[in-house]
Amino acid sequence: MKKNYKLTISYDGTRYSGWEKKKDKDTIQGKVETVLCKMCEVEALNLIGAGRTDAGVHARAMVANIFLNTEKTCEEILVYANKYLPDDICVEDVKEASERFHARYNAAGKTYRYTCFDGVTKPVFDRKYVTTLEFPVDVMKMQKAAQYLVGQHDFRSFCGNPKMKKSTVRTIESIEIKRSKGYVSIYVHGDGFLTHMVRIIAGTLIEVGRGKIAPEFMQNILDATNRQTAGFTAPAQGLMLMEIDY
Amino acid sequence: MKKNYKLTISYDGTRYSGWEKKKDKDTIQGKVETVLCKMCEVEALNLIGAGRTDAGVHARAMVANIFLNTEKTCEEILVYANKYLPDDICVEDVKEASERFHARYNAAGKTYRYTCFDGVTKPVFDRKYVTTLEFPVDVMKMQKAAQYLVGQHDFRSFCGNPKMKKSTVRTIESIEIKRSKGYVSIYVHGDGFLTHMVRIIAGTLIEVGRGKIAPEFMQNILDATNRQTAGFTAPAQGLMLMEIDY
Repeated sequence: MKKNYKLTISYDGTRYSGWEKKKDKDTIQGKVETVLCKMCEVEALNLIGAGRTDAGVHARAMVANIFLNTEKTCEEILVYANKYLPDDICVEDVKEASERFHARYNAAGKTYRYTCFDGVTKPVFDRKYVTTLEFPVDVMKMQKAAQYLVGQHDFRSFCGNPKMKKSTVRTIESIEIKRSKGYVSIYVHGDGFLTHMVRIIAGTLIEVGRGKIAPEFMQNILDATNRQTAGFTAPAQGLMLMEIDY
Repeated sequence: MKKNYKLTISYDGTRYSGWEKKKDKDTIQGKVETVLCKMCEVEALNLIGAGRTDAGVHARAMVANIFLNTEKTCEEILVYANKYLPDDICVEDVKEASERFHARYNAAGKTYRYTCFDGVTKPVFDRKYVTTLEFPVDVMKMQKAAQYLVGQHDFRSFCGNPKMKKSTVRTIESIEIKRSKGYVSIYVHGDGFLTHMVRIIAGTLIEVGRGKIAPEFMQNILDATNRQTAGFTAPAQGLMLMEIDY
């Protein structure tokens, strides 16, 4: 009999074409499904992720659910999966879930972290998870600018999909920006995110931090509901999906 | 006029044939000398490292000294070097030193860290700096065993060079072993180290941790002054040079 399992998965997205399964491309969903198909000796399975991360984006705790027909315990599933998955994907936790649990529909919120480095040295050991800036940024200005985004707004200016037909209204619960030596980390917690939304927020805040955009101009960007008014899309490698709330 | 500079250098040793310059191979010393030769417009320079790390070993703070004839300030040297060095080597600090400062001769002690992972999951984000074990280890036993090595001893059993003609007596000031979830870190602080010494100590302590060697047997290993009695040489990738005392 099939049971529903909740998986927590971490991955270094560097060499993947994102979460979502794609023909002839390496993706996280594809890799995990392949290993679990082998384990269950079936042709196909459907791993439902809480969201889709872009190519090159990392995750500490992506959540997914999957219906499996197996005699194995949760611990045995975890050990099997980690044995056959590549070094840059790890199943951190496996739990039996109720039949009705759906990783995407039940997700109430997500926290992303965008990390950049503006020191005169270099982030040698975590260089794959950080975007190195050529200029220093002013975190106070970035914090001031970020507050305009907190709350429920139409984030069309921060949406990377120009053909988006559905609502672009989302709620950002909080944006926290922390500096530790040369590292500047932007934590964004919200109920849901549009295509590239966190990366466009990060790129815009970086432009504020270097003085190209005034913090107060964030209101104009929101009001414009036009992607052209916001800053650049910050590179994928600095983005990490940290946590999903249920 | 030439001045003596003290450089602190960090590197991810994964893709290098160690610290020491070698013909037709990528090494840390080679890469840094090449960049500084270009900066000073000279044919050759001699970067004196505090020690030589093996192929694949990492460093957070290798110290080296070099005589340079340049008008640049220390900050300018640092910025120049980091601009032209690859992403996995960073000059963390540049200071003017006295003419008599010698990074190797003046080094009074060194701290290395050996990190392994024995959890059921995997160390996705720092997998290049950790050795993954196939079995769990008992840190209490490892700590007990480590204490036999503290103090001044003949470490011939822990020397990877069978032809070593000079003294193999060294002093280990301390060995601390810390567990944090699946990570076990062995910190070794001593006045100097023989070829592969920290890696053989780590390999032997890992064998103690999994129950293959009794902690009390460490005394026999020391007494034997024979490499065959000690454990395996733990892989280079788990080793990090942390600090050098002057």
